Amino acid sequence: MDKILLSQKDMPKQWYNILADLPFPMAPPVSPVTGQPVTPDEMLRIFPGPLLEQEMSPQRFFEIPEPVMEILSLWRPTPLIRAHRLEKALGTPARIYYKYEGVSPAGSHKPNTAVPQAYYNKISGINRLTTETGAGQWGSSLAFACQQFGMDLRVYMVRISFTQKPYRRTFMRLFGAEVVASPSELTQAGRDMLAAHPDTPGSLGLAISEAVEEAAGRPDTNYALGSVLNHVLLHQTIIGQEAMKQLALANDYPDFIYGCHGGGSNFGGIALPFLREKFAGKDVTAIAVEPASCPTLTKGTFAFDYGDTAKLTPIMQMYTLGHDFMPPAVHAGGLRYHGAAPIVSALLNHGVIGAETVDQSDIFKAALVFARTEGIIPAPESCHAIAAVIRKAAQLKEEGASKTILFNLSGHGHFDMGAYEAYLDNTLEDFAYPAEAIEESLKHLPEVNL
Amino acid sequence: MDKILLSQKDMPKQWYNILADLPFPMAPPVSPVTGQPVTPDEMLRIFPGPLLEQEMSPQRFFEIPEPVMEILSLWRPTPLIRAHRLEKALGTPARIYYKYEGVSPAGSHKPNTAVPQAYYNKISGINRLTTETGAGQWGSSLAFACQQFGMDLRVYMVRISFTQKPYRRTFMRLFGAEVVASPSELTQAGRDMLAAHPDTPGSLGLAISEAVEEAAGRPDTNYALGSVLNHVLLHQTIIGQEAMKQLALANDYPDFIYGCHGGGSNFGGIALPFLREKFAGKDVTAIAVEPASCPTLTKGTFAFDYGDTAKLTPIMQMYTLGHDFMPPAVHAGGLRYHGAAPIVSALLNHGVIGAETVDQSDIFKAALVFARTEGIIPAPESCHAIAAVIRKAAQLKEEGASKTILFNLSGHGHFDMGAYEAYLDNTLEDFAYPAEAIEESLKHLPEVNL
Repeated sequence: MDKILLSQKDMPKQWYNILADLPFPMAPPVSPVTGQPVTPDEMLRIFPGPLLEQEMSPQRFFEIPEPVMEILSLWRPTPLIRAHRLEKALGTPARIYYKYEGVSPAGSHKPNTAVPQAYYNKISGINRLTTETGAGQWGSSLAFACQQFGMDLRVYMVRISFTQKPYRRTFMRLFGAEVVASPSELTQAGRDMLAAHPDTPGSLGLAISEAVEEAAGRPDTNYALGSVLNHVLLHQTIIGQEAMKQLALANDYPDFIYGCHGGGSNFGGIALPFLREKFAGKDVTAIAVEPASCPTLTKGTFAFDYGDTAKLTPIMQMYTLGHDFMPPAVHAGGLRYHGAAPIVSALLNHGVIGAETVDQSDIFKAALVFARTEGIIPAPESCHAIAAVIRKAAQLKEEGASKTILFNLSGHGHFDMGAYEAYLDNTLEDFAYPAEAIEESLKHLPEVNL
Repeated sequence: MDKILLSQKDMPKQWYNILADLPFPMAPPVSPVTGQPVTPDEMLRIFPGPLLEQEMSPQRFFEIPEPVMEILSLWRPTPLIRAHRLEKALGTPARIYYKYEGVSPAGSHKPNTAVPQAYYNKISGINRLTTETGAGQWGSSLAFACQQFGMDLRVYMVRISFTQKPYRRTFMRLFGAEVVASPSELTQAGRDMLAAHPDTPGSLGLAISEAVEEAAGRPDTNYALGSVLNHVLLHQTIIGQEAMKQLALANDYPDFIYGCHGGGSNFGGIALPFLREKFAGKDVTAIAVEPASCPTLTKGTFAFDYGDTAKLTPIMQMYTLGHDFMPPAVHAGGLRYHGAAPIVSALLNHGVIGAETVDQSDIFKAALVFARTEGIIPAPESCHAIAAVIRKAAQLKEEGASKTILFNLSGHGHFDMGAYEAYLDNTLEDFAYPAEAIEESLKHLPEVNL
């Protein structure tokens, strides 16, 4: 049996909040204005009450509201697939399973949180959202979600992606979203940047600044973020909960869990429900995988830092490469982020999870092996997990160890074929570890005295 | 319950051959060389024995070989989905179900036949295939299938698609296929065309001629076709068989079945198993839907004609617009074919099934309604079925009739975003019914005297 399907009636009815079970305290987010823990009132300018509650609450489970369940059911539960053909090609004694999130409307795990975020804004009287997007996965997901609830959405899309990925732009327009290139003339942050650097390709950090600035300045508009925050990871735990049920159907349990890591929502989504069991004594190893050229978890500093370049977001304690670090232009746009989820950062800092890096050329090598055996072309982001799994499977082969590996295949690569073309043509650059740039940007961390 | 899933153990184990149950005789294919029924020896130059047997045999069921089942299981059974949200948006009393074939490696139903075609060639000692592709769906599917069995593949891709759809080309290369623009210097048919019209954009008819010419001239190479032929429709019946089991799980049965129609494999795949029951007395209406600008079934002639422009293929009795008819450049590249499957043609000619057309602008209007309610961006080909279903649902609403509609969503539109972009930008052309061109090409039908 390759595909382990869960019936819709067995879909998890709750999200799991790991804040209830962490064996250590988390530092509070800090206001960029006061330098003190951010107050609910500050956050309510851009987030609705129910999401703020989920962000802060120690409550272990949150019920998934019925209107959210109804939409998630369009593609959930997602399949868990035993990668028999990959195992055979690798000649490994390991049992490899992957959870496939690419079956969603946007082609990745992002709609799992886009839908509840739109919903909670809607029931809080908000009919308009702003957000940023880099490669376009998150913007596409939120466009779909806003469409479902009849809400307006403006997406600030990093200018270079706006030009290079017209089809992701089309995708968002198809679901009724307005897409503008960032930097834009619509915000102070955008105008300042355009005045200083008219030809800038833009950056995710700046696009966040523009989206936050607009939302903070308009009472009818809130802001939505696709990763990093606690409530985002909360919504993604449906992935790991489903995977746990599906593995039980196969009478198996993971020894190792892999997920690619950009802001932390994909890794957290698959890993957090299993970490709850790890806290209760289960022997399970969870590893976040990031690009060697943007090594936040493996080479960054555990410190307080801003979530965006323009210093408009709360300051969070996390692994960071510095908020003004500009990651190299790897094709895995979803992993080009200087920071990391505070939850994932704290778990790593306390030794609960591990982190690894892979090179860009290795991820495409892994992608080809995977596509040709399992028949799915993976997103460059997801390929990081695949490359690490292949590395592990080879190690287990040497050891002759029959272990179980689970990873999250966060999305398909149908909108990333330009990257594959470059790989097949041998024109893909590999990026060295940008040691000097990181050293420089780490000098600019804010000082926080709580 | 929106998604009706079938477990892998309930997957159909056999293909259904409607030739066993047709209440009328079929005309034989005719040799373009002798003008007499084509002999097995002529066909064996480009097809392997087991496929020829399936093409001709009156045997009702064929076992699906285990190695084929194993690969099909990577994505099959595909989901049957009750389109609750679409029904609600349309305000129709109809129950609408769709079978979703876009979950396959190539994103459509085509791998259902690509895999067995590659397999039967492989076990017949053939390690190399040629084929043609227009938009790229079939080429992608056969590339995947050949990869699975370690076979080489050369794809003649219509030159204009080769240039306009580089990502489908990348897709095929990723699965190890060689892709050449057609017309090419590799064949006599290609060289003749290039000498006469160096700037020609190419055509599907010519690409077929090149692929057939090469296969016929090389003993180590066979040819594979993605539609039209009996054995192709046979392999696709897994779709309808699964759908029948899934509808039974939902205690339902279709009053109306819709499928888009190019060569006939998608429509045949969903409809033929139900037509078996229609012959036994069930009340079910099956309708093939084609572009108004390429109206083979609705405006063509039921006659003997060639399958390609260069007159290299057998002459088949079918609905045709004439083998030298050049269909307008609609975005549904998979439906731009002058002919139709002999089986579908005979069923229509005997009044067993119906046929309808839709305009290009209507298919994208339908696509937006569908994507925004069901969360899947459909391929332009599949949108023909959706548009016809929406039209039917509106009629049933007027009549207050609570009927059941089933359609085949043959593929996703992730590689067709250029067409969506044009639609959103209002730059999409609509094509008038090309009456004069059809009248002209119908003058060139071959004479057949059996």
